[in-house]
Amino acid sequence: MNLKPESYILRIGHRPERDQRVTTHVGLSSRALGASGMYLAADDAKVADSITDVAARFGGTFFCENNVKWKSCINQFKKSGGKVVHLTMYGLRLQDVIADIRKEEKVMIVVGAEKVPGDLYELADYNVAVANQPHSEISALALCLDHLYEGRELDLAFPDAELEVLPTKIGKTTIKHEHGNEEEL
Amino acid sequence: MNLKPESYILRIGHRPERDQRVTTHVGLSSRALGASGMYLAADDAKVADSITDVAARFGGTFFCENNVKWKSCINQFKKSGGKVVHLTMYGLRLQDVIADIRKEEKVMIVVGAEKVPGDLYELADYNVAVANQPHSEISALALCLDHLYEGRELDLAFPDAELEVLPTKIGKTTIKHEHGNEEEL
Repeated sequence: MNLKPESYILRIGHRPERDQRVTTHVGLSSRALGASGMYLAADDAKVADSITDVAARFGGTFFCENNVKWKSCINQFKKSGGKVVHLTMYGLRLQDVIADIRKEEKVMIVVGAEKVPGDLYELADYNVAVANQPHSEISALALCLDHLYEGRELDLAFPDAELEVLPTKIGKTTIKHEHGNEEEL
Repeated sequence: MNLKPESYILRIGHRPERDQRVTTHVGLSSRALGASGMYLAADDAKVADSITDVAARFGGTFFCENNVKWKSCINQFKKSGGKVVHLTMYGLRLQDVIADIRKEEKVMIVVGAEKVPGDLYELADYNVAVANQPHSEISALALCLDHLYEGRELDLAFPDAELEVLPTKIGKTTIKHEHGNEEEL
């Protein structure tokens, strides 16, 4: 299944140590909900590696690039024809703009931490709010991707997984894929 | 607007210090996306206060109760006719069970941290997975609430707010409500 438009996440304002868990959640949610990759605008190889490691074990082609410069990353993306969606509690309502965003060829979703540079609001093609309430960049991102893909991302398959989880009513079922042999754990 | 079914969040496995930010995100996302309140199964008054403080400033009637016992909280809720939804990457697919959950009178959504007690899977009426992939309890919760309420929670009003954010294309617009007088900031 191909999800359209392609989406890429840009994580800005990450402070090593303080934001490691939240940024890891941002990266893993991006992957699980259909984004193609994440750019991290900070130098934190540990976080990038931990996301890449999960991606390798659970399949798919999600990438995480460490230590990009946020502004040149945005400018390069725009030059290549992509549109920039900045998630902020001050923006236009998701439910009012998502149909327009869905028509774009590819989008970069910018996810800030507590403070973001003021010129980001101008650089963005869409400043988008999920509920105009203070909550979490992780849930804002999750809802943005889910509304972008209209829930179809929940049916996404992740090829070449080493570890696969089977939906189970009570308990846990995982399958380990190894050199073509399958073994129920 | 009344969202049905009423939802309550139970946060378990919270470790003071380590989980403060993630649990705060869980609480604020619950509030912003239509839940009635959160029970915190740990003693961390600082987190509960910070969620309660946001709720007071931004309006609505969301509550956060510190230091509950998770099992008695669940049992009491079930006795009062509520159903328990446990979010876990191993559960049944959200898209396959949400229509049934939507028919319930009221639900308690249990959000764990890294490890949860094994008997929770048995106690839960629904073990529910958002994507059967590892990502984030915050995005799992956000999607669960959004699918439960079919996006209507994004139109929720929060009465008696001191501070209100107006959707804005570029920049920030907030209204401060004070003793009946309004002032644009």
